[in-house]
Amino acid sequence: MRFISTTSLGGVTERLFTLGEIPGVLWTPEDAHGARPLILMGHGGGQHKKAPGLTARARRFAAEGGFAVAAIDMPNHGERPTSEEFEQIAAEYRARAAAGEDTAELDTAMFRLVVGQAVAEWQAVLTAVLQLDHIGGGPAGYWGVSMGCAFGMPLVAAEPRVGAAVLGLQGSPALAGTAAQIIVPVQFLVQWDDELIPRARSLALFDAIGSAEKTLHANPGKHSDLPQFETDNSLRFFARQLADT
Amino acid sequence: MRFISTTSLGGVTERLFTLGEIPGVLWTPEDAHGARPLILMGHGGGQHKKAPGLTARARRFAAEGGFAVAAIDMPNHGERPTSEEFEQIAAEYRARAAAGEDTAELDTAMFRLVVGQAVAEWQAVLTAVLQLDHIGGGPAGYWGVSMGCAFGMPLVAAEPRVGAAVLGLQGSPALAGTAAQIIVPVQFLVQWDDELIPRARSLALFDAIGSAEKTLHANPGKHSDLPQFETDNSLRFFARQLADT
Repeated sequence: MRFISTTSLGGVTERLFTLGEIPGVLWTPEDAHGARPLILMGHGGGQHKKAPGLTARARRFAAEGGFAVAAIDMPNHGERPTSEEFEQIAAEYRARAAAGEDTAELDTAMFRLVVGQAVAEWQAVLTAVLQLDHIGGGPAGYWGVSMGCAFGMPLVAAEPRVGAAVLGLQGSPALAGTAAQIIVPVQFLVQWDDELIPRARSLALFDAIGSAEKTLHANPGKHSDLPQFETDNSLRFFARQLADT
Repeated sequence: MRFISTTSLGGVTERLFTLGEIPGVLWTPEDAHGARPLILMGHGGGQHKKAPGLTARARRFAAEGGFAVAAIDMPNHGERPTSEEFEQIAAEYRARAAAGEDTAELDTAMFRLVVGQAVAEWQAVLTAVLQLDHIGGGPAGYWGVSMGCAFGMPLVAAEPRVGAAVLGLQGSPALAGTAAQIIVPVQFLVQWDDELIPRARSLALFDAIGSAEKTLHANPGKHSDLPQFETDNSLRFFARQLADT
């Protein structure tokens, strides 16, 4: 793990890093010492590790929750090269979306292309970050919606170091089997008028999650209209869940 | 409004009162002075103004939120006389429920019998309590699920002094028109495995609520398994909504 830059603003320190080929960013409270919960934060499709919404949420998690937050560019996103195969599927996705056609199959194809790599990368980042002095071997959580949920569900299902997750804005039937393997507490976000995810599919994916403790939060609005107060809810959820581990 | 008794325990003062024929109870922080938000708390079917779950929730609202909380025995419940018509419907309800038959029609019949009276009583209590020195003309909210939602929806729809509501565990199609008239922020609770309310009806009633700001919280479990942490969510919801009014 190689740190590239360190900047501090508003009580939060932001450090850019690379781990092998993976570009990442780590937010912690300024002058952090000792172990603290770590939240892995997955970005959405077409976004990147420092997308404005993600960055704002991560800074609040660090400043108000005292958490460490790590984000990485997912394969084919941000600073990373895109593969020819991904570009072909993405071009067809844009064309179908513009024509108002169903894109679920292409979502699944893009997902299948890199899901194994994405999970392995998150696990490598988790291992590296947990060794840092000011994070330590504390508990970990995962926050990711939309594409961040698609890659997050296999991670949360496979990785025993992740003890709680905020997921949602996702309803791919291809994820149902994975969802059933998740056993940690989950907060699942649904946009009631989501133009990309049919409501019944969102509810079915929540239903499929195996966890005994899972909560669905549904709010009016479209895919990108997630209300600000759900960031407060995420913060309190992780504070409650990760304090106990 | 006539106060009958005053007791203090754990920083919360509990005062029993009557307003005309209506027996009620008022919880406030001990030594409360000045205006504070008032939460009207509706009890469930077969319960009463001091049912254990309601009392525990009211005490937390007073102790942790600084709120005043008022509850009353609804018609045909608690200390109040039951009408012959109500008893007949209730007996048939118990028989059908024991036989595993649909009781929705009888729910609606019991509701129609007293809904006008119940709303008028809540409004009278609201007027009386808001005149008390240690509550003042502060904002008001309503908390009620199951039968407490059935009577709460017409109140919240009709009463402009109620600025926010926690509702749920209810899916009667008879309430859809009333739900559409509600315009204040609502938190709506759903038990995902509710044995009394079909899931699709719960979701349809949430869908029918007219408010621009409404959130559905769904949790696994049966009708009476509402998780403790939803009390925290209710508290924060009212603190956020009623602080702004």
